[in-house]
Amino acid sequence: MDEEEYKKRLSSNFKLFDDNSKKQAKEFLELCTYVHGKYDEDAGFQDLEKHVRELEKPSLDKGLKRDRLYYLALPPSVFGTVTAHLKKNNYPGDEGHAKVIIEKPFGHDLESSRVLQKAIAPVWTEDEVYRIDHYLGKEMVKNILALRFANQFFNASWNRQNIACVQISFKEPFGTEGRGGYFDEIGIIRDVMQNHLLQVLSLIAMERPVSFAPEDIRDEKVKVLKAIPPIELSQTILGQYDRSEDGAKPAYTDDETVPKGSKAVTFAALQLSINNDRWEGVPFILKAGKALDEAKVEIRIQFKDVAQGIFQNIARNELVLRIQPKEAIYLKMNAKYPGLGTRTVVTDLDLSYHRRYSDLKIPEAYEALILDALKGDHSNFVRDDELDVSWKIFTPLLHKIDSKDEDVKVEKYAYGSRGPASVNQFLADRGYVRDNTKSYQWPVTKGNL
Amino acid sequence: MDEEEYKKRLSSNFKLFDDNSKKQAKEFLELCTYVHGKYDEDAGFQDLEKHVRELEKPSLDKGLKRDRLYYLALPPSVFGTVTAHLKKNNYPGDEGHAKVIIEKPFGHDLESSRVLQKAIAPVWTEDEVYRIDHYLGKEMVKNILALRFANQFFNASWNRQNIACVQISFKEPFGTEGRGGYFDEIGIIRDVMQNHLLQVLSLIAMERPVSFAPEDIRDEKVKVLKAIPPIELSQTILGQYDRSEDGAKPAYTDDETVPKGSKAVTFAALQLSINNDRWEGVPFILKAGKALDEAKVEIRIQFKDVAQGIFQNIARNELVLRIQPKEAIYLKMNAKYPGLGTRTVVTDLDLSYHRRYSDLKIPEAYEALILDALKGDHSNFVRDDELDVSWKIFTPLLHKIDSKDEDVKVEKYAYGSRGPASVNQFLADRGYVRDNTKSYQWPVTKGNL
Repeated sequence: MDEEEYKKRLSSNFKLFDDNSKKQAKEFLELCTYVHGKYDEDAGFQDLEKHVRELEKPSLDKGLKRDRLYYLALPPSVFGTVTAHLKKNNYPGDEGHAKVIIEKPFGHDLESSRVLQKAIAPVWTEDEVYRIDHYLGKEMVKNILALRFANQFFNASWNRQNIACVQISFKEPFGTEGRGGYFDEIGIIRDVMQNHLLQVLSLIAMERPVSFAPEDIRDEKVKVLKAIPPIELSQTILGQYDRSEDGAKPAYTDDETVPKGSKAVTFAALQLSINNDRWEGVPFILKAGKALDEAKVEIRIQFKDVAQGIFQNIARNELVLRIQPKEAIYLKMNAKYPGLGTRTVVTDLDLSYHRRYSDLKIPEAYEALILDALKGDHSNFVRDDELDVSWKIFTPLLHKIDSKDEDVKVEKYAYGSRGPASVNQFLADRGYVRDNTKSYQWPVTKGNL
Repeated sequence: MDEEEYKKRLSSNFKLFDDNSKKQAKEFLELCTYVHGKYDEDAGFQDLEKHVRELEKPSLDKGLKRDRLYYLALPPSVFGTVTAHLKKNNYPGDEGHAKVIIEKPFGHDLESSRVLQKAIAPVWTEDEVYRIDHYLGKEMVKNILALRFANQFFNASWNRQNIACVQISFKEPFGTEGRGGYFDEIGIIRDVMQNHLLQVLSLIAMERPVSFAPEDIRDEKVKVLKAIPPIELSQTILGQYDRSEDGAKPAYTDDETVPKGSKAVTFAALQLSINNDRWEGVPFILKAGKALDEAKVEIRIQFKDVAQGIFQNIARNELVLRIQPKEAIYLKMNAKYPGLGTRTVVTDLDLSYHRRYSDLKIPEAYEALILDALKGDHSNFVRDDELDVSWKIFTPLLHKIDSKDEDVKVEKYAYGSRGPASVNQFLADRGYVRDNTKSYQWPVTKGNL
């Protein structure tokens, strides 16, 4: 690849919608340059250094320092080599600062994660490393701390006395579609649950931080993760998608890149427990799957039922934070049905971003995170000890699944369905009440139903 | 007045909007008949009895009983005489049931209220008397109990640990407009506060009833009212409207029916305290006035500020129940402002009835209450002991005002203004935070503000 080809590949990802954006793209491309080299030879890194020093000249003349951000879009197997060579050849030392962004996967289990960490740690300090998890850049995820800690009525009810269960779910409407070879070794748990969904969980469950300073936030995330014991196989439902009911969509094992008879997990529902004063006894359910009925990532926080007595069959409150598509917050609540009579109806207090903030551009997760890294804000990146404790929660279960132990049951489900049949009972057993508002027509009720 | 004249007067109040409503009005008028007589002579009541018995004949033939509802649209001075004559001449005894609806004012103070009650009580049982307060028939007021007790997140926060203050306000945009002679002896406190606003307060503040049975609800209302000490003059702002700033609208004392130099109170802000475990230390402010800047009746429940520390100048949560015009519930809350950056913004969770329930007719308060009385449901009527305790709260203040004691300051305010100038400080001293969301544009934010 040369610079021209590099710019062509870059350009192919641009979303150009008017003359102004075309102009911006052109200006951006003029700032981009390309240097190539081998992962494990100094020569390429030295070429890079020479090139970067050229680029830095005008800034240095203005009195600025050599402040650099290296974004490693590389396979984890070369993280160690590349970071070592970067440190040796491209580290500004006293003349500035350097930061390294690395992408998942950060290992395959606790042990491999530690091996990876040991390769990076001697050369780069934790302060210089930015482990990116793009879920932490998503608008609604970044909203969680503001919502939780800036609202007294949530402060008052955000605990085991008032919350029955929490569900964090990720649904994808497509399968591996010919990329199953890569997926087969990973599985849905490593792909989205140990990282993205657990990150969301830690923000939902953590205690109030001393401040919004990055290390204060990360301290609290680590603390709450430490209170979560490893997930037990008995507290899971595992699944793999089969052909769709009409036969039009393929089974996972129909993917030619998938090993014959693969037991890879494409759906999982996992119950986590948090053994602290705020959450003991409240099930936290992570649920993720490919080839399901819809594309949706959301958090559902179900409040406990009110004491019945004076009400019959009344629905419970539920706070829904929809991360994608179309960011939204809504709080299902009960009100008197308008009109004569006294029956209650489930309604909701609603803040849908696309309705409320019509002309506002919500930034892409990576946009937000790269800006954070440039500013040196670690808040939305994964710290070493956080990574370590998150692997502790998942590793025993993952090893059990990898071992193909006979206890490990992988249930089939139809492509395009809601997942394995046993999921509903699994959720119900953990206090999750589904579809309690099916009869409620949102947002406008016509006539006296 | 004869029957024809009576029906003419009735018809003048009909709201006819289509052929069907004209037909219904006609059918209704055919059911109406008119009998006249003197308040204090048996003859008229005997005529009425004869007439009613005629009307009841077809029902009795069907096996129904003599179930009667007497609605006394009369001055309180004749309540005693009329109810006694009704009992003597028009009481069905074992042949059915009778109910009497009476309208405010139920006395002028504690003593006169008791005199009135003593005139009615020996002849009619409490179970037969329906004291109407039309605020209890209003949709949003009837919604209070459902909202409070059917939602766990309100259950969790509805107390002095989480609520800073409660304001119940009534604003009328017009003055006495030539009817000041009647108003002058009453004043705004007796007119709307001792009855309507105090009723709303009791629903906001009461404990959870054992059931929604009428006496269970009324027991709790009485209980919470008993925990409220009499209002002290020092905890009030009293006002009387003056000419509007542009001189176009008259002062109260310009009303020719008003006695010269009247000190009648057309605006009041009163602080009440509730000495129980749930509410001690939380100011409940009743505010009412004539000739103000708008027509609005609403309840504002302000939550405490969250611990600042991690936030700067963050707005507090506020739950607003708008009783009129256009029923609405909204909950002001803080969220992260969408986009890059981490500042918070006040937004709200919104349930506006007119938007959500577009085609639904919300019944008039009297419609709802008369139906309740026909069904024998006392829930939304004022019980004798409730009336008694409500007068206990107000009587010392009212006597002080009536005495024209020099401590009683009646502040002038301009017709069309927000009320006396000292009100803002009065509210601020009681923890009420006003207009903290002035910069928030509801409901749609265009562009990145």
